Amino acid sequence: MDIARRFESNPLITPADITPSIEGAIVECVFNPGAFIFKGRTYLLMRVAERLTQEDGYVSTLVADPTGEAGVRVVRWALDDPKLDTSDPRFIYYDGHCHLTTLSHLRFAVSDNGVDFTMNPLPPLKGANKLEEFGLEDCRVSRIDDTYHLTYSSVSDSGVGIGLRTTRDWRTFTDCGMIIPPHNKDGVLFERKINGQYACLNRPSGADVGGHFLWYATSPDLRHWGNYACVAKTRPGMWDSVRVGAGAAPILTDRGYLAIYHGCNEDTRYCLGAMLLDTDDPRRVLARCDEPIMEPTTDYELEGFFGNVVFSNGQIVDGDRVTVYYGAADTTICAAELSIDEILSILL
Amino acid sequence: MDIARRFESNPLITPADITPSIEGAIVECVFNPGAFIFKGRTYLLMRVAERLTQEDGYVSTLVADPTGEAGVRVVRWALDDPKLDTSDPRFIYYDGHCHLTTLSHLRFAVSDNGVDFTMNPLPPLKGANKLEEFGLEDCRVSRIDDTYHLTYSSVSDSGVGIGLRTTRDWRTFTDCGMIIPPHNKDGVLFERKINGQYACLNRPSGADVGGHFLWYATSPDLRHWGNYACVAKTRPGMWDSVRVGAGAAPILTDRGYLAIYHGCNEDTRYCLGAMLLDTDDPRRVLARCDEPIMEPTTDYELEGFFGNVVFSNGQIVDGDRVTVYYGAADTTICAAELSIDEILSILL
Repeated sequence: MDIARRFESNPLITPADITPSIEGAIVECVFNPGAFIFKGRTYLLMRVAERLTQEDGYVSTLVADPTGEAGVRVVRWALDDPKLDTSDPRFIYYDGHCHLTTLSHLRFAVSDNGVDFTMNPLPPLKGANKLEEFGLEDCRVSRIDDTYHLTYSSVSDSGVGIGLRTTRDWRTFTDCGMIIPPHNKDGVLFERKINGQYACLNRPSGADVGGHFLWYATSPDLRHWGNYACVAKTRPGMWDSVRVGAGAAPILTDRGYLAIYHGCNEDTRYCLGAMLLDTDDPRRVLARCDEPIMEPTTDYELEGFFGNVVFSNGQIVDGDRVTVYYGAADTTICAAELSIDEILSILL
Repeated sequence: MDIARRFESNPLITPADITPSIEGAIVECVFNPGAFIFKGRTYLLMRVAERLTQEDGYVSTLVADPTGEAGVRVVRWALDDPKLDTSDPRFIYYDGHCHLTTLSHLRFAVSDNGVDFTMNPLPPLKGANKLEEFGLEDCRVSRIDDTYHLTYSSVSDSGVGIGLRTTRDWRTFTDCGMIIPPHNKDGVLFERKINGQYACLNRPSGADVGGHFLWYATSPDLRHWGNYACVAKTRPGMWDSVRVGAGAAPILTDRGYLAIYHGCNEDTRYCLGAMLLDTDDPRRVLARCDEPIMEPTTDYELEGFFGNVVFSNGQIVDGDRVTVYYGAADTTICAAELSIDEILSILL
């Protein structure tokens, strides 16, 4: 049952709204934004995926490089090089080493009403070290007291793990390094300590045994994490049968932590669902929806770079109303409103 | 160049030496032992993999269960159940959920001379919680001051991660939980703090990007880990082209930390190699051998449950001599001596 009230002006932001990082780059997708309130205004921290226009006879791609122009560097190979393999549109393999054909970074947008956004109120965030050379993806923003905690996928040829940076003013950032190793995505902090510890949800991927399940971990200091526990698995035959992962920070309600999460099935159809986690021990799932609370139905969700996808890692809570900012078809940014009470009534 | 001097009495320990945990269980393999000195004697902490004899019309397997007889429980399915899938000899799938056909636990052996071992000087260590239901595998033992640190693969239907228990007396253990989430194996602690922090090597597995690479992490308190960094990747075209992973605790030498590690290639041929890591920053690889220092050559290494494998996660250092205890063909326990100087002379 889709209970999301989509904004009439969806999609709110499309690739045409985004200036490429450097000449020759094409913005392929703008999607999966983190969301936060700063000084009374709504900010999005959007994932921008860029691809280079290709010269005849060569294949080239962007790599994050803090010493390069606009924080990127071009890597180029001759197409007739026998060590080159470009058979997979997502990857460039050269001599056994892998590069991505697109590079993602994080771009800001700001709004006074949560609907009409102005681009680039702050400088973009880009990969800053070896473990971020293939970019930053799908940033969550969790606020604890006056500090914003940015958790994102750090991508490189070493793999995909969870990186963390913190800031109070959005001008200076503390880099806490890679806090959870590959293969892990969908990391997000709870917005208050639980039993005296920081806590997060994350999504390791198994090999042979295990799967793409939702996990929990705790930390005394943000930089070091442990006490890993599996919270929720995929459910065979259901809409979240293949992958599950956390969305934005779970919402503290008087019934528990409400976690809006994503799941996908064998058709790689991504929907949003909800689960309720115990307030004092969020490893305990108190309730989980049988059906999605939002599923891809509109044109802009069904068709795009990767169709049949609604994916959210950013939301703004105002009383009973949660505004979910979401990536539609991995191509544009949209928004929808849901009622927390309505989600809870489905769950309980 | 194989520079290992194998013990004449290899294999030292075979499945016939191991008493099954319960009636009906068959010891399939005894392999991949951790090794340590306690009160002047050499101990092995062996991985014992057991399988159940099968009744007509049923398939059954063991699951670790601290409340069960001998710490295990039998799970059984009727072969004619349409929800059952036994097509993969390693796994039993039922209604989308996975079990393993063998269960591993850790068994002790003790010796006065490092060659002739007596079984069961101490009670076995078995899976003790949900994340260890499919067993404990490939335990490393790192001694820091008077405390032994056991790192092992914790296996369950949630995935494979690194668990840690510590002990001073081998009678009482402190369970530090899962310290690194799936998919991760080959976790081992350095035997002293580095820059005031505990440090470990571990082996996450990538998906899409990344691979089976050797990583580093640090901890202030053993339970929480961070500052993940990739130390060494697989090398295309070489003997360690597909997977690399740490062995026992790196050996502190005056040239750096000597890490004996395993690698395998496209033929799943497992060899041992060596690398030298910077003493103050073990993320820096100072040298790495081009060729293995030990490769499967003898009958007992070439043939067995999984042939063409030498794999070590336990060693005893005495001056220049390192005695490597290793699993041969995933079936038996063997030993070989190497000279640290000789390994260093190859590396430098």
